Amino acid sequence: MKKVSVGVDIGGTNTAIGIVDEAGKVIAKGGIETPSHGDIEKYMDDLTAAIRNLVSSAGEILTVLGIGVGAPNGNYYNGTIEYAPNLSFQGIIPFVELLKKRFPELDIIALTNDANAATIGEMIYGGAKGMKNFVMYTLGTGVGSGIVVNGDLVYGHDGFAGECGHTTLIPDGRTCGCGAKGHLEAYCSAPGMKRTAFELMARYNATDSLLANKSFNELDSKMIFDAAEAGDKIALEVFEITGKYLGQGLADTVHHLSPEAIFLFGGPTAAGDYIFKPTKESMEAHLLPIFTDKIKILPSELDSGDAAS
Amino acid sequence: MKKVSVGVDIGGTNTAIGIVDEAGKVIAKGGIETPSHGDIEKYMDDLTAAIRNLVSSAGEILTVLGIGVGAPNGNYYNGTIEYAPNLSFQGIIPFVELLKKRFPELDIIALTNDANAATIGEMIYGGAKGMKNFVMYTLGTGVGSGIVVNGDLVYGHDGFAGECGHTTLIPDGRTCGCGAKGHLEAYCSAPGMKRTAFELMARYNATDSLLANKSFNELDSKMIFDAAEAGDKIALEVFEITGKYLGQGLADTVHHLSPEAIFLFGGPTAAGDYIFKPTKESMEAHLLPIFTDKIKILPSELDSGDAAS
Repeated sequence: MKKVSVGVDIGGTNTAIGIVDEAGKVIAKGGIETPSHGDIEKYMDDLTAAIRNLVSSAGEILTVLGIGVGAPNGNYYNGTIEYAPNLSFQGIIPFVELLKKRFPELDIIALTNDANAATIGEMIYGGAKGMKNFVMYTLGTGVGSGIVVNGDLVYGHDGFAGECGHTTLIPDGRTCGCGAKGHLEAYCSAPGMKRTAFELMARYNATDSLLANKSFNELDSKMIFDAAEAGDKIALEVFEITGKYLGQGLADTVHHLSPEAIFLFGGPTAAGDYIFKPTKESMEAHLLPIFTDKIKILPSELDSGDAAS
Repeated sequence: MKKVSVGVDIGGTNTAIGIVDEAGKVIAKGGIETPSHGDIEKYMDDLTAAIRNLVSSAGEILTVLGIGVGAPNGNYYNGTIEYAPNLSFQGIIPFVELLKKRFPELDIIALTNDANAATIGEMIYGGAKGMKNFVMYTLGTGVGSGIVVNGDLVYGHDGFAGECGHTTLIPDGRTCGCGAKGHLEAYCSAPGMKRTAFELMARYNATDSLLANKSFNELDSKMIFDAAEAGDKIALEVFEITGKYLGQGLADTVHHLSPEAIFLFGGPTAAGDYIFKPTKESMEAHLLPIFTDKIKILPSELDSGDAAS
């Protein structure tokens, strides 16, 4: 009989489920669509069925120790999901309470911000093993982050610490998904990169760019990467500019926390040096001399698909 | 026989010394000039003599438990002062080691960043009593900060955490004392306010401003406050703009740390609502909705002159 934990990662489109053994190995994966119908009770029923099904079909007898949930705007203190902009469930959802009703046999059901969950994963199973002070940025549809100080994840006074994607890079800059202006997320998320590509095509009238035949709703960060690989000037400049913005934000984080390293996680980081090099250069240019050449920027060692675990 | 601690606050111009009893009361104050001669051994001798003199002339028999030092670029882990831009001592100064040689009878000699020392003071004796997660900004010649998470001061990986004065507000903005561009300190320190006043006088050709007869080297933040009190438009706008900048920076801090409160300490904060009101408005405008109207901005309850203690 094997002891396992269940990890749930709630994204705007899909909810991933992973079963993890005590060594941190993902032994089964599943998932359901994150619905747009806004009916939280129905979603909890579907999620419960999917978890029970995944556990019972694993091919061996499993003892589930607990469930860990990562969710946008997840609050560790209250077990709630609060006003998540990318989910159809409105207001404050008492997620842990609703899940406990469906798994009365489990003592441990915990929820946190999705980026915090990835940060804990990096600390236990990834590149941050043994690090006591580090930060993780997750770049995707949005930009999340998790902060570790003295070996503990920082939750802050009300459980919402680590929203570094919403630091301000450009006063009165681009409108962010949250409604404010000039936030890092509006520049360094995957949609932020797309916005930069469209700005650049407009600036240069770049009819010959490999990106010039894609609509605003078609273009994604993978296409920008492929175009950069093919030598497209617009795509290459998108990475330069995104790195410049991101480095400015990372320097702000360094000045707050003096971390040993900052990990980058998520789709846009697959571009490797295209994004890491300008990010590092920009971060260094914004730093106090006491921090120069001290802080590592590292790719996450987590498998993107396994971050929930 | 009374048990006391000695606090030393090393500023660019003066070194303040305070003797503090176990209740946190400052029972004697003294000080020496922080020299410009760059001779650290001579300074340590003078400082030692001043401390011993203050202790022996206190009018009662004192047992000194330890010495706590706050210094710009002070490193708690190493007991060093490293490359402090406003001090004449060059490179890395092994301050605690040099002081221990002169006070071999003391077990406890500790050094930290001056803003961190003020933050600890706020936590033990000031308005942050009982708070587990808060941040303090010290506004003066420079802008320092101290961060408390779960009741502990954050030092970070290398002991230099809490340099929030060097977050970037304006990409490619004003040159900061540290050499980088657009840092908060270049806008929200006392000299930063002066720079704003001169920018505004230049913009409006403000020959009728109460500040228009002061040279760049004469004008200070107290004069700007007095002019604001007299209704001077330039002075009033300086506070509006300084608050706008500071609020942007405080929002970045909130997004990192989700503190219960942010304390403001130092000369410019004596202007009360002139600075607190626009700061609060600007911070709120830059925040994620989950933080709206949650984070207090409070004046420090420490006496400026006693921050060393």
